Amino acid sequence: MTNYPDSLARLVESLKKLPGIGSKTAERLAFHLVKLSDDDAMELARAIRDVKQNLTHCSICFNFTEHDPCPVCADAQRDKSCVCVVEQPKDLMAFEKAGAFKGVYHCLLGHIAMLEGIGPEDLTIEPLLKRAQQGGIKEIIIATNPDLEGEGTAVYLRDVLADAAKQHGIKVTRIARGVPAGAEIENVSSAILSDALSGRADFRG
Amino acid sequence: MTNYPDSLARLVESLKKLPGIGSKTAERLAFHLVKLSDDDAMELARAIRDVKQNLTHCSICFNFTEHDPCPVCADAQRDKSCVCVVEQPKDLMAFEKAGAFKGVYHCLLGHIAMLEGIGPEDLTIEPLLKRAQQGGIKEIIIATNPDLEGEGTAVYLRDVLADAAKQHGIKVTRIARGVPAGAEIENVSSAILSDALSGRADFRG
Repeated sequence: MTNYPDSLARLVESLKKLPGIGSKTAERLAFHLVKLSDDDAMELARAIRDVKQNLTHCSICFNFTEHDPCPVCADAQRDKSCVCVVEQPKDLMAFEKAGAFKGVYHCLLGHIAMLEGIGPEDLTIEPLLKRAQQGGIKEIIIATNPDLEGEGTAVYLRDVLADAAKQHGIKVTRIARGVPAGAEIENVSSAILSDALSGRADFRG
Repeated sequence: MTNYPDSLARLVESLKKLPGIGSKTAERLAFHLVKLSDDDAMELARAIRDVKQNLTHCSICFNFTEHDPCPVCADAQRDKSCVCVVEQPKDLMAFEKAGAFKGVYHCLLGHIAMLEGIGPEDLTIEPLLKRAQQGGIKEIIIATNPDLEGEGTAVYLRDVLADAAKQHGIKVTRIARGVPAGAEIENVSSAILSDALSGRADFRG
């Protein structure tokens, strides 16, 4: 049997390292890249290079940024006294897209998952503690994912922030769990409905 | 709202140009590329560049290759008198992986699809005719896909090759349609079963 040409085989191998891309998809993408216009293909190659060369983490909140501090932390309009703690920069972007938050962020860069060998020391929890201890923060909103690891990380953060919170009068809160906007009650899972019930609040018209 | 850093936004846009990759997947891949080791990311960027710079079509069979003619056409062991006509180089690769074919190939680089504006002149049918007219070919196996466009292209090829076939004694054949190996009869479609029935052959034990 005749194999792929070398350069094609290498491209397939490289693509297979991406998440959710198996052999078949890697081959499909590689064949498409071959057929792509030179401009588009070179632009993609350049974009990958640039993103690795230009992107760094904000030294304050660990968001991805090309300039340190990141645009959110550098923005004088943002409320620095309210810090929303998220797992990943993409969660931060999701909040920014929603446009509902005027404070600043802290990206943990992951969640605690002891079984995968990810402990608190692998996240940016130490810098978060330092931010809390520096004073000037009134509220820390824990916005880790509403799943097993996210909840575990949230509980860990609550405990580890307790001292600093007491000392500096910081309120530590957790984002609400409940029925997602736009959902049909008959179609959401019982875990969601349980959350929605136990988290019910006074109905203000 | 704060947008993605420039380089990240450009990477997302570039990735979105790939087939089957929407906004969400492009963002997921982009975030993963940022986290990828420098080596792996640069290797991918380099692989994309190389594939565009090094890969060309074989001047005989239009397979992708780094050296013209391609390894199949250049292989003295292959039976040059038997040409298997496929739509794309990836179909050629599939036959090579199966290892069941010892002849050579011809890649049409597509199929006829008048509704999408792809006519015979957009494919490598002219060079195939020239190969047939040069002589030395005993059989042309038409292995376009067993779908609407593939069948249409097969019929067109049969007609367009008729004269040269008669003149040079070339047998024009079509790959068999039937139940796929390993399938369960109860689960295959009626179109497949119809093919399997109408294509039945003498049972040689």
